[in-house]
Amino acid sequence: MQSKMESRYIRGVGMTKFGVEDRSTMSFSQEAISKALADADMKVGELDAVVVSTVDSKMNDERQRHYAAMVASIIKRKIPIIRIEAVCGGGGAAFWGACRMKFNNMLVLGVDKVAGAPTPIVTQEIMHAGDNFWEQEEGLIFPAINALVAQKYFSQYGATHADLELISFKNHANGAKNPNAYFYKKPVTLEKIRESQMIATPFNLFDCSISVNGAAAAIISHDKADIKVKASALHTDCLAPFERDSLTEWSATKYAAKEAFKQAALTPKDIHVAEVHDAFTIVELLAYEDLGFAKKGEGAKLIREGIVNLDGKLPINPSGGLKARGHPISPTGVAQLVELADQLRGRCGERQVRRANVGLAHNIGGAGGTVTVHILEKR
Amino acid sequence: MQSKMESRYIRGVGMTKFGVEDRSTMSFSQEAISKALADADMKVGELDAVVVSTVDSKMNDERQRHYAAMVASIIKRKIPIIRIEAVCGGGGAAFWGACRMKFNNMLVLGVDKVAGAPTPIVTQEIMHAGDNFWEQEEGLIFPAINALVAQKYFSQYGATHADLELISFKNHANGAKNPNAYFYKKPVTLEKIRESQMIATPFNLFDCSISVNGAAAAIISHDKADIKVKASALHTDCLAPFERDSLTEWSATKYAAKEAFKQAALTPKDIHVAEVHDAFTIVELLAYEDLGFAKKGEGAKLIREGIVNLDGKLPINPSGGLKARGHPISPTGVAQLVELADQLRGRCGERQVRRANVGLAHNIGGAGGTVTVHILEKR
Repeated sequence: MQSKMESRYIRGVGMTKFGVEDRSTMSFSQEAISKALADADMKVGELDAVVVSTVDSKMNDERQRHYAAMVASIIKRKIPIIRIEAVCGGGGAAFWGACRMKFNNMLVLGVDKVAGAPTPIVTQEIMHAGDNFWEQEEGLIFPAINALVAQKYFSQYGATHADLELISFKNHANGAKNPNAYFYKKPVTLEKIRESQMIATPFNLFDCSISVNGAAAAIISHDKADIKVKASALHTDCLAPFERDSLTEWSATKYAAKEAFKQAALTPKDIHVAEVHDAFTIVELLAYEDLGFAKKGEGAKLIREGIVNLDGKLPINPSGGLKARGHPISPTGVAQLVELADQLRGRCGERQVRRANVGLAHNIGGAGGTVTVHILEKR
Repeated sequence: MQSKMESRYIRGVGMTKFGVEDRSTMSFSQEAISKALADADMKVGELDAVVVSTVDSKMNDERQRHYAAMVASIIKRKIPIIRIEAVCGGGGAAFWGACRMKFNNMLVLGVDKVAGAPTPIVTQEIMHAGDNFWEQEEGLIFPAINALVAQKYFSQYGATHADLELISFKNHANGAKNPNAYFYKKPVTLEKIRESQMIATPFNLFDCSISVNGAAAAIISHDKADIKVKASALHTDCLAPFERDSLTEWSATKYAAKEAFKQAALTPKDIHVAEVHDAFTIVELLAYEDLGFAKKGEGAKLIREGIVNLDGKLPINPSGGLKARGHPISPTGVAQLVELADQLRGRCGERQVRRANVGLAHNIGGAGGTVTVHILEKR
């Protein structure tokens, strides 16, 4: 058991709108930090430490690597600040790390700027999250890896692309109701999803999440607050999927989920709402199973029967997920926790989930290389 | 006080030789991990978690960003692995982070490959550790920033380049005795140091540390072992030196040192041996003062009077430091702890410090942006 974690609470959360706005990462960071502090009713002087997650990217023209010191410049405080990075799973990993450190009030910040760069640069930069030597040299960039996972899943379990279309449709329907989502007020029809351009068989454009800019922040504390961190688990798997036992069961998710439910003394049935890592539609489908919400091979039932819809029994990705809120890399894992905190507090307006007292966040780095699972509870 | 850290011990250490050998980072990592495990008399199956530090660099052709998952591939274990990165201070920051997490046996690994890339690429990549917008656009790359610090220090306190030459000479003399150092068996004369090419007034080539490849590892544990981690402190300052109160006192070092001595209930007088971050000779001189080994403005006395020489009262950088062992970025902070553990255990042969029971390590990221101070004690 990796727990022995002391009681932790979320005192406040904040995020920027995710989108293609061309501002500096410092500006995105400042906005998210200010909103989280205001939400927690705290002054910056009350922070004891910061964990920041950001990829070290050439995708924007800032050319900055030493982001802990940049955060020091933003908050003008002499406190410990470190950077924890795990590519697309960086936000969750930073929160996990912060949960393990004995500072009273810790800020967790995810920030990145991905939109706007030329596509070949973005593709190349994102590829660095996966295996270069064995896989990418053979053409296995992320859409291709995940497309192979989908093909394997279809042949093993009989699901079809129609199931993935429903996942995309659901997440766009939710995102259209989220003012922080890139696709806010831009619902997408099933027909448009079906007819979008092919990316890598069986994926078309609407199976893939969208690269955006933004920042998200959360303040965790030893002091009691209304949102309790019931569980915090992280697991790691080898880099290249070809090295794994299975393409269609991601062991890092399974291990992290098992650990998280053990820490929380809960089962998957106790979860009221979840944010899962839908970098590609198939990844959300696998998450249903690897997190324990469905038996192996039966995940598609959850979307076919509407169980994971906003008005279903277990709404998944009410924020719109990576698909429709957008995926700015490191902020994603923190934004999931922002959404859960807002859901548990009943602040989500049009996309509010009924009876949301216990929420689960699932964030992935790479094709299943680093996975965090967090469970939050409204006290 | 950032402490509340539970008792931690170093069970084993290991490192590769630092140099220009052209091997994969995986190969360097594997060697350092194997050596640390052997030193600890542990099997890889006994590890409970890993913190890895590596820069996310284009300086080598591996193009890999997701290093936690690469470590999973090396150790073939399903355990939590995270990456903590703080440019040149990454090794110390990773150790600091690991000290705060409640896993029984944690591996801390620093690995990077810097040598061999074309100089403009290395320069550009290293620049990402500093402020791009306000400083580097004006020509303030790291040698230039530190040269300005030296000029300011000379004018304020009356030291001269002759003092810096003595620091370089001492570190080369020590490194010549360290089989893991790049300059092993390659002592350098004072004449050669004086006559080397100008880099940025007042620096010549021998004021600057050398970029190398390598890895270093340490295993820390709750289980009692002969080396105790008496203190672990990290502080952060803003990115650009122009924003600071002083160019010649680095506050992150001062805060981290104050915190570390408080945790250890020791004073600077209690330290028998230290590894300090001599990225440039002036940085070692400032460290004498900011760590409390000398009064402000009087640091040069320590080198003039031979106090910090290998046979002096307080030997500093017996390993040869960044100057002569070499500076592979993230491994540096871990290698300092490897050297201290070896010194405290009396395993350093020709460069063994007499009566070394308490050692201090001081690692910097950027031009004073992130600083860690660790104090180790032989039980």
